[in-house]
Amino acid sequence: MANDAPKVPLENDTLAEVTSDFIFGTMATDELRLAALRERGRGLRHDGAITPRDPQPGEPVTIAVMAGEDVSAARVWVSYTTDGREPGEDSEAVALARTGTAWDTLGWGYRERWAGPLPAQPEGTLLRYRVWARTPAGETVGADRDPETGEPAHFAVAFDRETVPAWLREAVIYQIFVDRFAPGDGGPWRPDQPLDGFWGGTLRGVIDALPYLSDLGVTCLWLSPIFPSPTHHGYDATDYVTIEPRLGTEDDLVALIEAAHHHGMRVLLDFVANHVSNEHPAFLRARHDPDAPERSWFTFRPDGAYRAFFDVATMPQLDPDDPGARAMLIEAARYWLDRGVDGFRLDYANGPSHAFWAAFRRATRAVAPASATIGEVVESAVVQRSYEGRLDGTLDFLLLQQLRAFLAFERIDPAAFHRFLTRHLAFFPADFLLPSFLDNHDMNRFLWVVRGDTRRLKLAALLQFTLPGPPIIYYGTEVGVSQGHDLQYPDGSRRPEESRTPMRWGEEQDADLLAFYRRLIAWRRANVGRLGGERSLRLATPEGGYVSLIGSDLLLAINRSDAPIEVAAPKGGTLALATDERVRLASGILTVPPNAGAIVG
Amino acid sequence: MANDAPKVPLENDTLAEVTSDFIFGTMATDELRLAALRERGRGLRHDGAITPRDPQPGEPVTIAVMAGEDVSAARVWVSYTTDGREPGEDSEAVALARTGTAWDTLGWGYRERWAGPLPAQPEGTLLRYRVWARTPAGETVGADRDPETGEPAHFAVAFDRETVPAWLREAVIYQIFVDRFAPGDGGPWRPDQPLDGFWGGTLRGVIDALPYLSDLGVTCLWLSPIFPSPTHHGYDATDYVTIEPRLGTEDDLVALIEAAHHHGMRVLLDFVANHVSNEHPAFLRARHDPDAPERSWFTFRPDGAYRAFFDVATMPQLDPDDPGARAMLIEAARYWLDRGVDGFRLDYANGPSHAFWAAFRRATRAVAPASATIGEVVESAVVQRSYEGRLDGTLDFLLLQQLRAFLAFERIDPAAFHRFLTRHLAFFPADFLLPSFLDNHDMNRFLWVVRGDTRRLKLAALLQFTLPGPPIIYYGTEVGVSQGHDLQYPDGSRRPEESRTPMRWGEEQDADLLAFYRRLIAWRRANVGRLGGERSLRLATPEGGYVSLIGSDLLLAINRSDAPIEVAAPKGGTLALATDERVRLASGILTVPPNAGAIVG
Repeated sequence: MANDAPKVPLENDTLAEVTSDFIFGTMATDELRLAALRERGRGLRHDGAITPRDPQPGEPVTIAVMAGEDVSAARVWVSYTTDGREPGEDSEAVALARTGTAWDTLGWGYRERWAGPLPAQPEGTLLRYRVWARTPAGETVGADRDPETGEPAHFAVAFDRETVPAWLREAVIYQIFVDRFAPGDGGPWRPDQPLDGFWGGTLRGVIDALPYLSDLGVTCLWLSPIFPSPTHHGYDATDYVTIEPRLGTEDDLVALIEAAHHHGMRVLLDFVANHVSNEHPAFLRARHDPDAPERSWFTFRPDGAYRAFFDVATMPQLDPDDPGARAMLIEAARYWLDRGVDGFRLDYANGPSHAFWAAFRRATRAVAPASATIGEVVESAVVQRSYEGRLDGTLDFLLLQQLRAFLAFERIDPAAFHRFLTRHLAFFPADFLLPSFLDNHDMNRFLWVVRGDTRRLKLAALLQFTLPGPPIIYYGTEVGVSQGHDLQYPDGSRRPEESRTPMRWGEEQDADLLAFYRRLIAWRRANVGRLGGERSLRLATPEGGYVSLIGSDLLLAINRSDAPIEVAAPKGGTLALATDERVRLASGILTVPPNAGAIVG
Repeated sequence: MANDAPKVPLENDTLAEVTSDFIFGTMATDELRLAALRERGRGLRHDGAITPRDPQPGEPVTIAVMAGEDVSAARVWVSYTTDGREPGEDSEAVALARTGTAWDTLGWGYRERWAGPLPAQPEGTLLRYRVWARTPAGETVGADRDPETGEPAHFAVAFDRETVPAWLREAVIYQIFVDRFAPGDGGPWRPDQPLDGFWGGTLRGVIDALPYLSDLGVTCLWLSPIFPSPTHHGYDATDYVTIEPRLGTEDDLVALIEAAHHHGMRVLLDFVANHVSNEHPAFLRARHDPDAPERSWFTFRPDGAYRAFFDVATMPQLDPDDPGARAMLIEAARYWLDRGVDGFRLDYANGPSHAFWAAFRRATRAVAPASATIGEVVESAVVQRSYEGRLDGTLDFLLLQQLRAFLAFERIDPAAFHRFLTRHLAFFPADFLLPSFLDNHDMNRFLWVVRGDTRRLKLAALLQFTLPGPPIIYYGTEVGVSQGHDLQYPDGSRRPEESRTPMRWGEEQDADLLAFYRRLIAWRRANVGRLGGERSLRLATPEGGYVSLIGSDLLLAINRSDAPIEVAAPKGGTLALATDERVRLASGILTVPPNAGAIVG
């Protein structure tokens, strides 16, 4: 049961450090943020900055470029192609014009802004481009160069009418870590496995669980990687068009998809375009033979070393802008779409270029018009938003951070959370989704962080399910799955596997929590059209009472404090959902006891 | 002689640290810049951001406000007056509208932008305003609050047709540290004075030197503070409308002004609106009597302590937004203008508010239409530019820093300097002056930093005198005055007095350097109209060769390197000025030996 989750004598402050450290690995500390700001202030920078970010067919596009403190630009131009070729020296080009000078206090110097038009294109055009400057000394400098290779970045913009698929906008997503979800065929977990071992979950196990999932009410399954891989997590594939035998077969997957569809559920695969396993045959060929056709898929250094994901040698990094690597990835994605998959959760999506994703979405939509592309971009809001028009959305890591700060760590008060939330929603465009989550396979589970207090988990879920972005439930959260140990060990090591303990089934499930989640999901599915309204603050106490009005008639009350809160309900509103039976609505006054929450309307 | 300046075994890197540390006292290090950026990212911030920055009569103004990560704003408004009263609760108000949300990576949060119109005003109106927000909890928050008192900042905008006086735009300014310039009446320096003692310079000494200054060619004198003060520098006055007796009398000043005018020279006083001496009678009264009318001129803390300039207790800080303090300061300024003074160099001008300076310029221009207001704003370019319409310009500390980095410390190469310079000039508007200087009374002299190498000083001066901003010569630079010791002592203490050694007269002067300065000044005065042209890079070698074309026909060559440089001269150009007799212009090719420079055209 949830409340059996181990209690650990950790200070909240320690947990806060650990968790925020982890969530934004490359942007966690001031030092890292500064390094990123500095890096983006140097050189010739474009960062995919076009206006509009998602142009329609025939719409002209303005491209913005910045010459950093260290770059003199006598002229700046964009070379582009519309026929699929890589833009090169002989491509068509448009000149940009100097538009202003900006001061940068952090870099203590000036930057120069350049801008100009990209020609409007007919529907369906993928315009590939690169940005260049000529220095007064006659050198050519490319924009957004790779710090190691000096290679300028690839950009692309798709002139299409694609929008976020309607089903995705309304989805309730369930994240399944396949090895840890269900062994299948009634089989038991494999005994005596270490945390990073193979516990025995399979695709057949997922199929067996479909009635449970359907009964829960979720409408979309996100499967953790299922391609062949030497690891339990699978984020290092050795192939992209077969299934890891431990997990099942292609037939199993097709059967799972068909059965899921039968239950009204979609299926997303976890897709890693950034890196492969060092046992991937293409990598082995590339590594041992400089003349191998796959050599250019990777980045080898003069000393024979190679670029790898966060320098983890078992995960050599692909160059998805390499035509061969790109074709392999896109063909694999199309292969699975042809087998009925409904789209992809895209691992480390800020690794591959914007150009790759523009091409990827265009290619996948061509074979599966309503297929989904959701990126994992653990980055600033500006970087996340830059994927508009290239992806359907990005996992909402910023919300995760603030929501945990509000309801788990109590580092921010309701007013600060409300401020964050309203600005966060205002910052992102309507046609870009921010799927929300309370935890995932890479961090401490929410229930662990709140020391097993399911009242807090219910509060967080209540808040999550009133957001416009589709909610994601990490498997088992709904039945009280927690952990045996913190991810962060006293010796400084970190074991994300701690949050990947096996799913609980049957008697082991927290029935009360599960019943709450069922009601919550049902409520959301019936009310999803009402969640896009403006959010106005009704109550924000420093102690943790938070009430906001969504649109004109939906009241959300979250009481994190030690005292009851009272608030006037919207006229004619009824108690739609409460986390606690002691919540009362009487004579138009909603009374919410400590650690409880409710929706009225 | 200049080359007798003491050589010290200091590393350039050490000097670089010391100097940059000092020049930007509050913005010298990353840590300080970050602190400033963070401070400006919090709360409700306006920072005087209006468009246009210097509105003409009848021109509508847009005001921009930012609600920081920590401020929730339900509404934002501006209260204003046009009749001289302080804007208060009962003043007219205009509401601003939310215009956007911005992400701040450094603060890792969102800010909200608000904007709205200030009504256009007829000529001569001084519109005073303050900016407010109401939080959802019903609290009122003022913009740009004082971190200590919480008092919101005062702003003002003058709707006038004031522009930078033409004479100031064309001036060659000479900075006189009065106590160290000339004893007067042929008298000797006072013997055995410590560095911070009274050496005996007087206003009569300056009068005696007028023929020298006129012969040198300068057109404007800036006198260091001459009001009564307990210190040799005078930046802590005990009165604002009399003369320090050590330096002379009011009659002496009037005689000096008249004689200077007779020689075609203007006279600027150094004016400190930010703080006074702790011996100023107003401060003494305010300190000892809480009911004294001057009590509100200062900021006293509950424990009886008081706000002071950089916490130096002998310099209690004025609040120039206090009507009494403001009136005292403005009346004093007008008093001296009535006696013929041509304007002011305004010490620590970023201490007093924008509102004060708007009122100050309006009041001083009313009595002396062509009087000058030049601020010392040792701050970022953005902050300096915000004084457009309030001051005629700000001393060009950013140029100073880069020019020394280029020609003294050799920390940047010609391409980087040219990049800085062109962007710097583009960043500032045409009607805002950036007077240039190589050194002043608060830093190591340029000649000291280059270890007495007058060739380098000539190069720096050559570059300085081709800039559009009026050049300032710190007394004695033109005849080789240097120092006896670095400002920075090995024990970590800093003694700016090291750069205030007495002027050299007669045989002690470096005649060669002086002759060069005479030619340089004469050349500038004859060619000042040609210096606003665009600057294009002709040569930039990593070793230090730098040639740029100003406008269409003025070539500036600076050779900091160890090898000669050659460059084609503009057609028909002649050698206008050279720092070294070995410079050659033959067959249209300019040849510049190492450590030399020239102007062709």
